[in-house]
Amino acid sequence: MASQSVILTGDRPTGPLHLGHYVGSLRDRVRYQNSYKQFIMLADAQALTDNMEDIDKVHRNVVEVALDYLAVGIDPSKTTVFIQSQIPELAELTFYYLNIVTVARLERNPTVKEEIRLRGFERDIPAGFLTYPASQAADITAFKAGVVPVGEDQIPMIEQTNEIVRRFNRMYNREVLMECKALVPDIGRLPGIDGKAKMSKSLGNTINLGATPAEITAAVKKVYTDPLHLRVEDPGHLEGNIAFTYLDAFDPEKAALAEMKAHYVRGGLGDSIVKKRLDVVLQEMLAPIRARREEFAKDKGQVIQMLKEGTFKAREVAARTADEVKSALGLNYF
Amino acid sequence: MASQSVILTGDRPTGPLHLGHYVGSLRDRVRYQNSYKQFIMLADAQALTDNMEDIDKVHRNVVEVALDYLAVGIDPSKTTVFIQSQIPELAELTFYYLNIVTVARLERNPTVKEEIRLRGFERDIPAGFLTYPASQAADITAFKAGVVPVGEDQIPMIEQTNEIVRRFNRMYNREVLMECKALVPDIGRLPGIDGKAKMSKSLGNTINLGATPAEITAAVKKVYTDPLHLRVEDPGHLEGNIAFTYLDAFDPEKAALAEMKAHYVRGGLGDSIVKKRLDVVLQEMLAPIRARREEFAKDKGQVIQMLKEGTFKAREVAARTADEVKSALGLNYF
Repeated sequence: MASQSVILTGDRPTGPLHLGHYVGSLRDRVRYQNSYKQFIMLADAQALTDNMEDIDKVHRNVVEVALDYLAVGIDPSKTTVFIQSQIPELAELTFYYLNIVTVARLERNPTVKEEIRLRGFERDIPAGFLTYPASQAADITAFKAGVVPVGEDQIPMIEQTNEIVRRFNRMYNREVLMECKALVPDIGRLPGIDGKAKMSKSLGNTINLGATPAEITAAVKKVYTDPLHLRVEDPGHLEGNIAFTYLDAFDPEKAALAEMKAHYVRGGLGDSIVKKRLDVVLQEMLAPIRARREEFAKDKGQVIQMLKEGTFKAREVAARTADEVKSALGLNYF
Repeated sequence: MASQSVILTGDRPTGPLHLGHYVGSLRDRVRYQNSYKQFIMLADAQALTDNMEDIDKVHRNVVEVALDYLAVGIDPSKTTVFIQSQIPELAELTFYYLNIVTVARLERNPTVKEEIRLRGFERDIPAGFLTYPASQAADITAFKAGVVPVGEDQIPMIEQTNEIVRRFNRMYNREVLMECKALVPDIGRLPGIDGKAKMSKSLGNTINLGATPAEITAAVKKVYTDPLHLRVEDPGHLEGNIAFTYLDAFDPEKAALAEMKAHYVRGGLGDSIVKKRLDVVLQEMLAPIRARREEFAKDKGQVIQMLKEGTFKAREVAARTADEVKSALGLNYF
């Protein structure tokens, strides 16, 4: 039997994880850990590429994001959670991959282009930001990940990684590195509570996984619904109605939800009833996550210990790959 | 008393060292090892930035260049000779420095610009080539080198290193990194035997330190002199006359040389006499170097052992700096 496929995911530890992360990746990772050899990377070094002025945020959020992982059910006995910066071999691989990718090719990478635009870097792009596809290639190939779950917008990063892999293997005429496949989740991106396409900390439209009951209720009150649905008796619209988008994503009682939707469309169902249901659903879903989070947060030393062990395990794997790469490059002397 | 200043130099191991290296740096290094804490880096990783297709050359020349060092009198008990690629912390430092230098700034670096032009890279510049000033900054700062001997053309690299140092220290409000000073040798560059400004392997106008007596004699025969000095009785010119340039650099008998020059200028002294003297001088100078080189070459295992010990020592120093840098960046968890 073939050995178990490796899957690599990760997060930039720049803020608490929220429902968007839960729907877009965390929920899947809890499943993946039973069918894949799963590595999850806390990408603190990558986070620095545009946070060199805000290093405390990155440091602090490494543990916070790890708590989010544990809270949703990531099991350290099944998943290797590690801290990127603690694995120097990832920087080494990046260093060598930079030699087989041209500046022009990096500048053409659509993901990088878009992110440079979003951040308003113009000509003052930190070199580490332009070159981060090489760093991602290092992360992915270090663990010989065959599967990398990413959003649609990240597909060019995976393509660039595979270009580096093919070029390297061809240049040194052996299969040192492994190509990977992007795994794009079926479920699209979860919109923010304000109706904007993306739930994002910087847009201030999130519901965090660690939100208190009061915070959840307050957020639900602000959830964008149907601006044309002015009176209870008016027919309502489901499209772009975030309350229903969230109910679709999280309400386990599908039949009752279908009925509620029909009622809403027909008229006679007020937003407050819909939001009351959404509040119940989110409270029920987030309560155990919050409880586990609080439990783990009581002993941060244990969380650090979990990260230390994961990082140690991950480093052994990355070091093996770095040795193979350096040996292919003739950089073995002793 | 202040602790001994650190001096860092190195070579890209892409070919045997020659008289140009001897005059431009090796001779000085033999002196420096008595007054500085000296590190010499075999820059194999940097050599790869434009030699990814010719890795065997780089691998092979690591030992060859180490032999050249030992042959000229570099003493491993006084100088730490190390192999760049075997110190992952240098790649780590490079990785972080890339975040505090912009792409535009790298593109403006005159040394990089000129080398890109020389190599004909145009738009297909390997990213690792554009970013190598960050890598040089890593090499220099890792060892807290206060003095870096470089040619005039490399001064912009030193300036870029110091910019990174100042920016880093300012951002994190502590003196983690140390600025360095370029030490430009008094003696200019040694021209090639063909009269071209630079002695260089790629121009095929070198006399290697390990040259055999016959190779030295053959090279001396080809040395460019005075094209206007057609007959022995004609007055000769010293300017641009490489035979005299070399005699100026290497002939220990200054009075006799002054007399010979006067005779040449006045007329009546043939090139063959001048070249015979040059042959004697070079044979005498290179014989003990070649003998030591052959002696050390008998036991390459011992050379490797010397490099291993030097690399181990150097790595301890670089790792300490990398720890300080990562700690300043908040990348310390365990």
